[in-house]
Amino acid sequence: MKHYSQTIIKEMPSRARAHFINSVTGYKSSNLIGTISPDGKTNLAIFSSVTHLGSNPPLLGFVLRPHTVMRNTFDNLKETGVFTVNHVSADMIRKAHQTSAKYPAGVSEFEQTGLNEDYRDDFKAPYVAESVIKIGCRYVNEYYLKENDCRFIIGAMEHIYLPEELVSDDGFINLEQAGTVSATGLDGYALPKILDRFSYAKPDEEVKSLLG
Amino acid sequence: MKHYSQTIIKEMPSRARAHFINSVTGYKSSNLIGTISPDGKTNLAIFSSVTHLGSNPPLLGFVLRPHTVMRNTFDNLKETGVFTVNHVSADMIRKAHQTSAKYPAGVSEFEQTGLNEDYRDDFKAPYVAESVIKIGCRYVNEYYLKENDCRFIIGAMEHIYLPEELVSDDGFINLEQAGTVSATGLDGYALPKILDRFSYAKPDEEVKSLLG
Repeated sequence: MKHYSQTIIKEMPSRARAHFINSVTGYKSSNLIGTISPDGKTNLAIFSSVTHLGSNPPLLGFVLRPHTVMRNTFDNLKETGVFTVNHVSADMIRKAHQTSAKYPAGVSEFEQTGLNEDYRDDFKAPYVAESVIKIGCRYVNEYYLKENDCRFIIGAMEHIYLPEELVSDDGFINLEQAGTVSATGLDGYALPKILDRFSYAKPDEEVKSLLG
Repeated sequence: MKHYSQTIIKEMPSRARAHFINSVTGYKSSNLIGTISPDGKTNLAIFSSVTHLGSNPPLLGFVLRPHTVMRNTFDNLKETGVFTVNHVSADMIRKAHQTSAKYPAGVSEFEQTGLNEDYRDDFKAPYVAESVIKIGCRYVNEYYLKENDCRFIIGAMEHIYLPEELVSDDGFINLEQAGTVSATGLDGYALPKILDRFSYAKPDEEVKSLLG
């Protein structure tokens, strides 16, 4: 086992350090965030930081770096108050990755990548037609993370769309059946296979498999 | 495709809503956080919210709910200033899940689950001996998320341990080779298989496979 000390990490070439540190915290979610400007220009960007925050109320969070290609996402969601979160599935990974290119302002990643806009239930922001699981969110708040000049954005989930057969009786959504991928590092995409689900853990009892 | 409106979600039984909303944001990281109290009592707890925050400096974040079994983790990392983040691999999922049981204060999840403490390079907090990838972190800051009474904890990665052969020349860490799992929902564990890695995306160029 190799020990990567602070000094070794600091001395890595910056691109290698970015790959290394982006991989080391484990697998990440892979979602496309869809927004629209007040004058109707759509934007689509891939994010690997969307995280569950709470179920009651249903909240999610994601990290935004300022002054990057993601700037359009931020401006749009602040101006319209809404954004969509759309799962990336195995057959979309190339197009999804392409959304991270720095297109000029006003150019829609939907058009550029061939992913299709999908509007539902009078929600202003565009969903991704090809996504099996889609979430319509309202902007709630943001926390400026001064440690590295990022923003942690919090959204309330107002609409969720997915095929009903993916949902178990207990509410669990089968992401394997949905074909949802997981992100790894800066540019990797992986397809997970469910190993098991376990019972609610208690101190004096071994957890039981729910799938066995 | 079924539309789960805010009303439908709100009216779900609370346990089903927890399963549903915990699954819907996509795959999550699966890590064990190890801490120690000033008087030497160790604690180990599973988290699915550890997220990459930045590479320079190397920072990660995770979400802590107050007044839960995770309370020991918080008290310890505040008092000692350090914690470890340890990947869960496929052969550890049952023991890792068992750490979520509400053990009485002072009882170590290491002892209860049979996972082993591992101390390295004079770092006070215990690593998990069985984990293939381990990160030693120093507490940096916390943001109180008033929307749902959570804390977003930020840690600086000071030590990283992993087998050197997992690291590609460009810095990418092969988590599939490490056997690292991904969490799904409240109680699911999945094993990802890498589909592809893509070149840095540019506006007028199709992304290329790095593995093909």
